[in-house]
Amino acid sequence: MDGIPPIALDAMGGDNAPGEIVAGAVLAVREHGVPVVLVGAPRTIAEALAEHDAVGEIPIVRAEEALTMDEGALASLRRPRSSIALACHLVRRGDASAVVSAGSTAGVVATGKLRLRAQQGVLRPAIAVPLPTRPHPTVLLDAGATADVKPEILVQFAHLGVAYAETALSLTSPRVGLLTIGGEAGKGNKLTKRAHELLTAVPGMNFTGNVEGHDLLNGAVDVIVTDGFTGNVALKTMEGAVRYAFAELRETLEGGRLSRLAAGLQRGRLRELRRRLDPEAYGGAVLLGLNGTVVIAHGSSTAKGVAAACALAATLAHQGTVSHVGERIAATHRSHRLW
Amino acid sequence: MDGIPPIALDAMGGDNAPGEIVAGAVLAVREHGVPVVLVGAPRTIAEALAEHDAVGEIPIVRAEEALTMDEGALASLRRPRSSIALACHLVRRGDASAVVSAGSTAGVVATGKLRLRAQQGVLRPAIAVPLPTRPHPTVLLDAGATADVKPEILVQFAHLGVAYAETALSLTSPRVGLLTIGGEAGKGNKLTKRAHELLTAVPGMNFTGNVEGHDLLNGAVDVIVTDGFTGNVALKTMEGAVRYAFAELRETLEGGRLSRLAAGLQRGRLRELRRRLDPEAYGGAVLLGLNGTVVIAHGSSTAKGVAAACALAATLAHQGTVSHVGERIAATHRSHRLW
Repeated sequence: MDGIPPIALDAMGGDNAPGEIVAGAVLAVREHGVPVVLVGAPRTIAEALAEHDAVGEIPIVRAEEALTMDEGALASLRRPRSSIALACHLVRRGDASAVVSAGSTAGVVATGKLRLRAQQGVLRPAIAVPLPTRPHPTVLLDAGATADVKPEILVQFAHLGVAYAETALSLTSPRVGLLTIGGEAGKGNKLTKRAHELLTAVPGMNFTGNVEGHDLLNGAVDVIVTDGFTGNVALKTMEGAVRYAFAELRETLEGGRLSRLAAGLQRGRLRELRRRLDPEAYGGAVLLGLNGTVVIAHGSSTAKGVAAACALAATLAHQGTVSHVGERIAATHRSHRLW
Repeated sequence: MDGIPPIALDAMGGDNAPGEIVAGAVLAVREHGVPVVLVGAPRTIAEALAEHDAVGEIPIVRAEEALTMDEGALASLRRPRSSIALACHLVRRGDASAVVSAGSTAGVVATGKLRLRAQQGVLRPAIAVPLPTRPHPTVLLDAGATADVKPEILVQFAHLGVAYAETALSLTSPRVGLLTIGGEAGKGNKLTKRAHELLTAVPGMNFTGNVEGHDLLNGAVDVIVTDGFTGNVALKTMEGAVRYAFAELRETLEGGRLSRLAAGLQRGRLRELRRRLDPEAYGGAVLLGLNGTVVIAHGSSTAKGVAAACALAATLAHQGTVSHVGERIAATHRSHRLW
């Protein structure tokens, strides 16, 4: 990643901060070649860097305060000097190309909205999450930035998702589906029925219609649009169900003597599969619609997950995802068909 | 199941009707000892019964019409003589103790509402689904009967779910959770924030607070309350994720030569696990809040699933779930705290 300003990494956000965050920064710099600046309490960060013989290798920007994991939107107002607020500030000034934080989603979203502001024409930001489908990920949005939405906002989420899929996944004319109940046009709740009508009328949108919960992982579409409440419930349900299936499986495989032997033979392959389904591997969620790239890593991220999130942030910054989103939103306004 | 009128089984509803439905009826009668009456086209049913040497063993009630799988609420109005409508009629007259159908959920819900009517004081019916948690199932409701609800209706769903858990699962003071995003009281969308306040104020309700998507399968609570839109998305997401995990797993296990050998050793145990997670095994969803027991089997049910649904319906009828729901709703009205 030559020539881009560094990634501003919130050293204080996350269940395992600052230890795993700093370790992730070292990994990002050394393994992924991604430039990083750590934002947080200088002494604590320096101590953690020392453990990796990395003092002086990664710059530190001082932040006096931090949001805790159970603090949400209000705290971000009260703490203008938090590590996440200062990371946003670096992006705003052009001194960093993107923000990465494993802090509380509510805190990161609120701070991002406040410090980076929504892009012109964007009604609400949305969190895009890549689901582990093949051959390429399916983008689910909104995964939790905006809980209560109007049908017009769902249409805009579709634009954000398309812009993201076009840049981050290099897809041409990505297929867009609306998450609802029942496959036909007339099915769903009031919100999705109206959004379906609106989406059908968007010129140039490859809207393929309704999708249901079981379509999240079958690659039926490239972008799945939903409100932040439903999207967050669906995402956590999916993660919980996969974890449950693996736990049940482990118990099953370890049940008998022959089975134990068999499980031993397969351990490597199972580990590989778990890794592919691991939310840490795919780097994290992306907050779309702001004047700057913001990647939200899983709260429980270890160094590996933090490094992957930094790499994702660098890729998005490099590809100009933010300006592509801006162009797309501007185009929908110009077309005088305001969704 | 001595002394209860037979289960009215909709022979024409479901992807595999009438073949698997009739086969399921035979299984229910012979293996589960559950009396059944088949409702539908007499000649077709008799032909299917003949394949099992069961002509005359199971009574038939003639229905001239049937709802197709892609027909929904409106069709049920237009077809007063459909098999599902007549099955409801038998329950209403006291000639059957419960309805079982594998027909389209929308069609069964609409017909049930129209023919059996909501119980006194019930604002909206809800579909309760048992999730495969241990040591006993967790009840998720509403899984799709009512897509748009008010907070007061979510409170009533909690009452329906508690009544169901108390009778069908024999639980005392079941723990109730509200499905939302974020664990704390102030988290969620407008609907769930208000519902949380209302649920906290219900006397005698064992309301333990918010639950999230990953709590569906971890047994954290006994009853999970949500609107029919979110519940349906969550349920289908869960089913899809479990199916996906198993498909990925199969591919992984069959990858190498040693692995193939290992997979062979474990086939029996894996099959057993799949069976436990199979929606067919737990009999189906229950439509609560009507003047009669209605069990909705999976649309793709085979004979085994149909028989399990008949057994569940007989158990619910035997235990008086409908009257227990009625008492509970009446009590909430009497307490002058209308949820």
